Amino acid sequence: MADEVRPFDDIRALLLQMPGPDQAAIAEARARESELTKPAGSLGRLEEITAFLAGWQGSARPHVDAPLVAVFAGNHGVVAQGVSSFPQSVTTGMVANFTAGGAAINQICKAFDISLKVYELALERPTGDITQEPAMDERNCAATIAYGMEALASGPDLLVLGEMGIGNTTAAAAIYHALWGGEAEDWVGRGTGVDDAGLRRKAEAVRAAIALHKAHLADPLEVLARLGGREIAAMAGAILAARLRNVPVVLDGFVVCSAAAVLQALDPGALDHCLAGHVSAERAHAQALERLGKTPILNLGMRLGEGSGAAVAVGVIKAAVACHNGMATFAEAGVAGKE
Amino acid sequence: MADEVRPFDDIRALLLQMPGPDQAAIAEARARESELTKPAGSLGRLEEITAFLAGWQGSARPHVDAPLVAVFAGNHGVVAQGVSSFPQSVTTGMVANFTAGGAAINQICKAFDISLKVYELALERPTGDITQEPAMDERNCAATIAYGMEALASGPDLLVLGEMGIGNTTAAAAIYHALWGGEAEDWVGRGTGVDDAGLRRKAEAVRAAIALHKAHLADPLEVLARLGGREIAAMAGAILAARLRNVPVVLDGFVVCSAAAVLQALDPGALDHCLAGHVSAERAHAQALERLGKTPILNLGMRLGEGSGAAVAVGVIKAAVACHNGMATFAEAGVAGKE
Repeated sequence: MADEVRPFDDIRALLLQMPGPDQAAIAEARARESELTKPAGSLGRLEEITAFLAGWQGSARPHVDAPLVAVFAGNHGVVAQGVSSFPQSVTTGMVANFTAGGAAINQICKAFDISLKVYELALERPTGDITQEPAMDERNCAATIAYGMEALASGPDLLVLGEMGIGNTTAAAAIYHALWGGEAEDWVGRGTGVDDAGLRRKAEAVRAAIALHKAHLADPLEVLARLGGREIAAMAGAILAARLRNVPVVLDGFVVCSAAAVLQALDPGALDHCLAGHVSAERAHAQALERLGKTPILNLGMRLGEGSGAAVAVGVIKAAVACHNGMATFAEAGVAGKE
Repeated sequence: MADEVRPFDDIRALLLQMPGPDQAAIAEARARESELTKPAGSLGRLEEITAFLAGWQGSARPHVDAPLVAVFAGNHGVVAQGVSSFPQSVTTGMVANFTAGGAAINQICKAFDISLKVYELALERPTGDITQEPAMDERNCAATIAYGMEALASGPDLLVLGEMGIGNTTAAAAIYHALWGGEAEDWVGRGTGVDDAGLRRKAEAVRAAIALHKAHLADPLEVLARLGGREIAAMAGAILAARLRNVPVVLDGFVVCSAAAVLQALDPGALDHCLAGHVSAERAHAQALERLGKTPILNLGMRLGEGSGAAVAVGVIKAAVACHNGMATFAEAGVAGKE
């Protein structure tokens, strides 16, 4: 009897095909770095960023010529548990605001010349309430992961992920709790700004969701389908697609990193092409970054989502690339080196 | 008998004339912030930055339309003590590199559309070796402070300070030691990258300088004249001039902050218009920022000087201002607020 073909099989197959960085490009970038008119290592993290980009872009001269912020928006049945201080209609409202150019992410993209694409994921049909049922079935989740891969279609040379979805910090907390254990309280935070009672409801919802689904949480893709949301599944797809095409990714905050965490649980090397743009003010994000093994570029107390923190980090990345490509060498400038 | 008029008297007189921020502009900026389409406080430090700029610029809509990086370059007699791993000729070489557009600061300014001015301060005549004599006499120091005030001449709406000067981390360490005590070892670091022996020579030079001048270090302006350098004196002038015109300043690293520390010692409120752009990798910079009461915007392990870390922070500041001015309000976007 033939094995049943299951929707997640395609995703698992892709995870076996992930290429690594171009070591020759990294070596060449580092060699150039050492000849630039500055003390060795004096640009600190900027030098690490350029070597990282060189490796993933396969080019000794890294570039940020076509950066893209891809914002995925979804709605969540778990809002019925009183986990957000904003009504669900805000997801749709903010998508319209993105389209009209009025949100924070629009201004940051304009400031740093970053393209912005917004992906609405069936906002009129929220996912299942994870305290009562799976958020999505396997087929729907796999299709949404595949949809997220479309973020690469325009050929960005740097991909920033962002999200919008009232209730999605609860879904993200449930994913972290399922993948990494601890208590529900370790992973929930104030999100858009819930009060103490709201925070208790979030922890209760996460606890209930884990209890309901506990027999099915050994597989990270099942965790994603049962506890996640459409925007989280789509972002997992986008991160994976970027890896398959060697496009470096800048992760944003607490919710984006939950999508990344699913991929890391599937393959410890799945996030090697990702930088952490920032550590957010959402309480458990620092802990999540530590688990992901990522040091954030920025720490500005932001907690807005939309890709906003990661997009600000693109400014730093652009500065790094500008220095690497534009600086004179000691020889070119006729400046004496270290004695 | 009339009191003798002394060169520093003019500087002291200016310190009595420092205006404060515009509280009405701050209140108006904060009111707008609360109406923008985001959860209250979710832009974190970006919101603090816009309120800060609003206050100093006296405008509810802060702006970064004419930012300027002013780099001051000087040479130091103390290099005779073997405190740097680069020859003194590098100061002149790097000034030529700034002019030719080949340095890191040139690339960062281009990336964020910041003007750059470089001020050479008698590079052919290094200041006195502080282990043997004062760096400058009072008259020369006062004139250099006054010269630094010229950085405001072009009317920048945001001033970034940077410096270049082989040997100047030793001068800065001597200033910190004189102002704040501790041991010479608490304030010296590797600068452009000295080895352990070089580090010991730096500590020894700082110790010798403090011992030589100890009878004259009660007055912070005497500290600046005897232990500092021309670029440090000029930056103190620029920071003070910015304060007198209500122009916000972004401080760079270890050496820039030593100029700021002199002003703070003269008047605890003298740096109220200053942001710390970054904390550098120079060992004692974090401690200096703490003494100055400033939380750095960035922490990227940079240690290049030239204003480079502060100029990268201008990217963050520009993003903050873009959000504040460009975002839609809840009413404009028709998005529901917090329930």
